[in-house]
Amino acid sequence: MKTLAAEIISIGDELLIGQVVNTNASFLAKSLTELGVTVKHISTCCDTVEDITSALELAHNRVNVVLVTGGLGPTRDDVTKAALCQFYNTELVFNQEVYSHLEFLFAHYIKAPMNAHNRDQARLPKSCKVLFNDHGTAPGMLFEHEGVISAFMPGVPFEMKSLFENKLKEILLELPGRTAIIQKTLITYGVGESRLAERIEDVEDLLPQGFSLAYLPNFGRVRLRITAKVSAGERIEAEQKVNTIAEQLKDRLSDCYQGEESEGGLEFRILELAKQKGVHVATAESFTSGRIASTLSAVSGSSAYFLGGYVTYATDMKISVLGVSKELIAAHSVVSAEVACAMAEGARLKSGAELAIASTGNAGPTKGDSEAEVGQIYLAISTADKTEAHFFSMGTHRERVIGRSVSKALELIYNELLNL
Amino acid sequence: MKTLAAEIISIGDELLIGQVVNTNASFLAKSLTELGVTVKHISTCCDTVEDITSALELAHNRVNVVLVTGGLGPTRDDVTKAALCQFYNTELVFNQEVYSHLEFLFAHYIKAPMNAHNRDQARLPKSCKVLFNDHGTAPGMLFEHEGVISAFMPGVPFEMKSLFENKLKEILLELPGRTAIIQKTLITYGVGESRLAERIEDVEDLLPQGFSLAYLPNFGRVRLRITAKVSAGERIEAEQKVNTIAEQLKDRLSDCYQGEESEGGLEFRILELAKQKGVHVATAESFTSGRIASTLSAVSGSSAYFLGGYVTYATDMKISVLGVSKELIAAHSVVSAEVACAMAEGARLKSGAELAIASTGNAGPTKGDSEAEVGQIYLAISTADKTEAHFFSMGTHRERVIGRSVSKALELIYNELLNL
Repeated sequence: MKTLAAEIISIGDELLIGQVVNTNASFLAKSLTELGVTVKHISTCCDTVEDITSALELAHNRVNVVLVTGGLGPTRDDVTKAALCQFYNTELVFNQEVYSHLEFLFAHYIKAPMNAHNRDQARLPKSCKVLFNDHGTAPGMLFEHEGVISAFMPGVPFEMKSLFENKLKEILLELPGRTAIIQKTLITYGVGESRLAERIEDVEDLLPQGFSLAYLPNFGRVRLRITAKVSAGERIEAEQKVNTIAEQLKDRLSDCYQGEESEGGLEFRILELAKQKGVHVATAESFTSGRIASTLSAVSGSSAYFLGGYVTYATDMKISVLGVSKELIAAHSVVSAEVACAMAEGARLKSGAELAIASTGNAGPTKGDSEAEVGQIYLAISTADKTEAHFFSMGTHRERVIGRSVSKALELIYNELLNL
Repeated sequence: MKTLAAEIISIGDELLIGQVVNTNASFLAKSLTELGVTVKHISTCCDTVEDITSALELAHNRVNVVLVTGGLGPTRDDVTKAALCQFYNTELVFNQEVYSHLEFLFAHYIKAPMNAHNRDQARLPKSCKVLFNDHGTAPGMLFEHEGVISAFMPGVPFEMKSLFENKLKEILLELPGRTAIIQKTLITYGVGESRLAERIEDVEDLLPQGFSLAYLPNFGRVRLRITAKVSAGERIEAEQKVNTIAEQLKDRLSDCYQGEESEGGLEFRILELAKQKGVHVATAESFTSGRIASTLSAVSGSSAYFLGGYVTYATDMKISVLGVSKELIAAHSVVSAEVACAMAEGARLKSGAELAIASTGNAGPTKGDSEAEVGQIYLAISTADKTEAHFFSMGTHRERVIGRSVSKALELIYNELLNL
């Protein structure tokens, strides 16, 4: 018997031409990992019967769980069902239950008559089990074939997620041989990965069987991921071991350790800490233009501490909205520690927040309203006690400068909250 | 001889557990398509010698261009170079030129002594051609083996992009058999894909050989992609044909056609139109919390028309910052057409912009400061002539509600700019 392992297949030319980023695959990979099913392969293939059947054949040879997304629309570019009939040696048959469900969707939500393309969506491979789609017209399908379970879901992320959560998960939970996969990711900042590796070499040497350490560098930080893959019965023991290793690493790397990566990042920890300390936060953004605000508020519940902010992209808005003085800008330029501080202070006083953060800088690709070089930025934090600015040189690519600056802003907020 | 076709392989457990979304693959897919190299497969494999060599073997059997990212770090979780030696039957040798480059990077940028892990990065497979990495310590590698060109690049997106643009592109441009791939994507809104298919069936029937039409539904819109894949000599003719088909479709779908998808979306067309018409734009955002502002300003050059905005997440900020009256909120609740209009008007008058857009609504998952159901939102547009609000019901998932609302806001801005 093959060990329990999964492959995720995405069908769609839009992925192969780079028009769409494959977030479906990362969602499914994460979900399977959480369920204790190891993902061994992720693959993407063209919208042709030949490529789809080849991909299925390969997957059936190397794993025993196959999750497929895409290619199930009602239009003629979608040929997945034809490929399935060929691969599973079956034929399309009309499914009355699916048809009634379609009629219901059209009558109540879509409010339009069904056409031939829609009616065809009720024709499904005879040997499949239908996974009813509550959010769209393309039903999901499940096959069990030569010891392999394969599920086919539409590519629209929302419909796929709902099918996975509500229909597929319970089936996967029944599979024997699931492992417990325990992970913890520590975030470090400012030390390169090779130097980190050197400093924790002995910890890495002593990792137990089934445990591993991975280094994920990006945007000036290195994330260290500890993973343990054990049988379900060993979960509690493994969790304890992962925690012990994490503590060792935190201790060893105390000068560059920033925190654990929680679900979704620092914004979750900021929410918890701000609520706990009763601190309200506001933002004043120039070149990050709402990215700090939208990151802070991406977390459900953030309205408990995040008041809002000011996007003062144009220099005049810094003056009229935040009350930064013209003279200060003339003396120091808009990209300066002084203006960053004035923006943060202005935002704090105008919003009534206990803590405000401001950004000003040049994200490039060309010089803006100041003489600052591309990538030079200031972030300022203001509280009742003090207002201080931090200077950073963030590289030369617009996207990277903004991304790193938003990360850094969250870190500054978090560290300031710790001190308040 | 195999037809020119490419495979993209991503190496890394972080992808297989869903910790990282594979944006490298979509960047490479897009870049290869632009160069006229058809991408047939995208695959992801584990960080083990066995899995890497299997993935390489498969790729070498099915395509003749293989681009690989990831697994080249200095730490022991990265085993790609060992796999390459095995697969290409070669051995690691010390490369003095790479070593000197590393010494230079450490002396001038990293400002730290090199350690054994770093020095190991100068040991490369004997048979490879080195692709020097200007932004990191892991060099890229190029192999030519049994008629297949394969390139190995680090997984850090910034380093990978730079290597691709500056080293690899010129090599790929030399390949014989590149096709011309011409694409145009039309955005439609409010009509389902099956109904669209029905309405343009005859256009689809008459598509010339090598031309195809794909339907990409998401967030209430369907993108229609016309693709032509022809030999390099037929490019101009194919471009004309793609334009003719696009015009036919626009004509046929005039009631739901929203525009062409330019590089990166509507924000580029808004920038052009606002500049052309001399209109300045400001934002007032509640539940979208800076997402409209950051989308507008994501385009380089946006400072020519985008002034900035107000993120009034908390109700009090709507009153104190935008001048919305307490009585109005009490009478209609914060999620109402009246408050949306007052926010938009406040933002326009305070910023001095000719056009302002405001958002207020409930993104969920629970009810907020108002009685509005989850997913109910208002967007208001204000100009000197009029201020009007639009109501939408955007579904029930926080992420989806915000995403759809930002798209809709950009559409409203664009349509208003057309009328100004």
